[in-house]
Amino acid sequence: MEATTPAISVAGGRFLIVGGASLVGSTTADLLLERGAAEVMVLDNFAFGSPAVVAHLERNPRARLVRGDVMRLPQLLAASEGMDGVLHLAAAMSISMDADPWTGLDVNIRGVQNVIEACRANRVRKLVFASSNAVYGYGPGVAGDLVEATPFHSLGAPSGAVIYGASKIIGEQLCRDAHRRHGQDYVVLRYSTVYGERQHYRAANALYIIETLDRVRQGLRPRVVGDGSETKHFLYVGDAARANLAAFAAAATDVAVNVSGPAPVTTLELVRMVTRLAGSDLAPEHVEPPAGRVRLTSGGAFRIDHSAAEKAIGWRPEVAMEEGLARLIRWRDEQTGQDGAQDAGLDAGRGGA
Amino acid sequence: MEATTPAISVAGGRFLIVGGASLVGSTTADLLLERGAAEVMVLDNFAFGSPAVVAHLERNPRARLVRGDVMRLPQLLAASEGMDGVLHLAAAMSISMDADPWTGLDVNIRGVQNVIEACRANRVRKLVFASSNAVYGYGPGVAGDLVEATPFHSLGAPSGAVIYGASKIIGEQLCRDAHRRHGQDYVVLRYSTVYGERQHYRAANALYIIETLDRVRQGLRPRVVGDGSETKHFLYVGDAARANLAAFAAAATDVAVNVSGPAPVTTLELVRMVTRLAGSDLAPEHVEPPAGRVRLTSGGAFRIDHSAAEKAIGWRPEVAMEEGLARLIRWRDEQTGQDGAQDAGLDAGRGGA
Repeated sequence: MEATTPAISVAGGRFLIVGGASLVGSTTADLLLERGAAEVMVLDNFAFGSPAVVAHLERNPRARLVRGDVMRLPQLLAASEGMDGVLHLAAAMSISMDADPWTGLDVNIRGVQNVIEACRANRVRKLVFASSNAVYGYGPGVAGDLVEATPFHSLGAPSGAVIYGASKIIGEQLCRDAHRRHGQDYVVLRYSTVYGERQHYRAANALYIIETLDRVRQGLRPRVVGDGSETKHFLYVGDAARANLAAFAAAATDVAVNVSGPAPVTTLELVRMVTRLAGSDLAPEHVEPPAGRVRLTSGGAFRIDHSAAEKAIGWRPEVAMEEGLARLIRWRDEQTGQDGAQDAGLDAGRGGA
Repeated sequence: MEATTPAISVAGGRFLIVGGASLVGSTTADLLLERGAAEVMVLDNFAFGSPAVVAHLERNPRARLVRGDVMRLPQLLAASEGMDGVLHLAAAMSISMDADPWTGLDVNIRGVQNVIEACRANRVRKLVFASSNAVYGYGPGVAGDLVEATPFHSLGAPSGAVIYGASKIIGEQLCRDAHRRHGQDYVVLRYSTVYGERQHYRAANALYIIETLDRVRQGLRPRVVGDGSETKHFLYVGDAARANLAAFAAAATDVAVNVSGPAPVTTLELVRMVTRLAGSDLAPEHVEPPAGRVRLTSGGAFRIDHSAAEKAIGWRPEVAMEEGLARLIRWRDEQTGQDGAQDAGLDAGRGGA
């Protein structure tokens, strides 16, 4: 044990990204390859992931796409063989958890157990587990500076959201347990809501950005649910990818840290920012929340503190919300502008996986 | 739907107790039978449950013991057929969760899902789910009055304990989800640490009572880990059984309430009380916590408020700690005194289940 260190060199390293056909997964794969990784394997069952976001990887001889499922341990055992690091992203988020808690709990709990088993069997040196600021919960209790010691608030939140947050708490603890039992090195990154190029519609909190852009592009007033005073704290996908690499490269192990953007915004600020960046001066329209839709609200103003991440893995966010949104809008306009179909990019990539 | 009410009459009612070969299960079965239930079925896989604690039920024609497992849905479907109410007690607690989180999570999450499926399929009118004050977590954050809105604290707690608490949070939410989706009536009872006759060694928090008694009976000084200033809030098993019946009989549904004893004690007070009730004046000995043992500590003084239970189900605790402990000690002395073997009662009963 004394001869090894939890730090992995990205250059020359071999990495598996579980649930990697996603916003964060594809961006992290790109960055790993750019920084000289010897191999990057992306495993996904494409239940939520999209072949389109990883289709470009097929042109890179150091990248591999594999169809596989976190519920199938043999597939994880095969995929993680010879890997130095595993990034575990596969998860059901609040909306999927609400629609089907049975499957969501399988993925978010049994899936983590399977990934840990595979890491252990193949002596993978480091596991980076994507957790979430959902471990601090929802509602009026979530206010002020959210630090790693902040407890989990659930009163009044939708069951899907509470189950999602609690499943992430359990996933983190399974990593701790693996470290205690058999020395598995790991870093837990508690992402705040990720946005950026290749943005999908799945994350409940990130919906505002794309919804606002889509309405503005159609000449419609953007919508704000309620008064728009609630806080969101987003994280640009490029910063998330840098955090993943930093977690592998750092000597840190057995630790969970927040990974958030430079500063929070209110929903109203966000909608106005997207509208302005899209070149529109349409005024937002305030609407009632749609019935039966999982929309996560928090009562108090909050800020997700990322100073512990700087200390543990030497990371801090670099991309301000305005810059990240500009990049996302540029990408989205390119996608939708190509042939007028919003999902042209996705459809074009579908045959390739 | 208008014709039905979430209130079930105990007299004449039919009840299934899942995971019922236990302290709470057997006492609840006895009380249901005493109050005129038409049928009480106890299902247990005897992984933790003991045939001895339910052996006496075999003499009652209205009681049935069934060997079954919460992980086997067909067994639950068969057992819950025709039942008016189901009490779901089967769970892995902190110590088992620490020893084997894979199995523990199956039982505490998939087990609840299976019980809910069985209730739905058989149109069981009401489910009472045994949750725990573990949903408020552990450590210095758990202080003052613990009410139903108190968040879950986990910083620094052992992984087995955190996983246990989070699994109970998820179990509660699965009940909420079943109510929202298909109108399943339910009441969640968040038990504090239960003690009383038929006490077992499994509950980490209740160990002090039996350990103290055993040492005092051997003429040894009772042990207190640390300074003994930490708070415990116990619940007498008879009061827990009354709460279960009250939850069935009340019109309350879709609610989670604390069920705790009249008042908290410190560990040191508890050890002194047991010593005194055992007729000894031995002074407690303060010791270091044993390595590798799950012993749950809380930093601050706390009190688990049970006023919401009184409002929702018309229940409040009746048995003071001193009285409950006197009953437990009397029972324990009868068990160990019969033929000198501590587990004589258990061994005698083992052939009967």
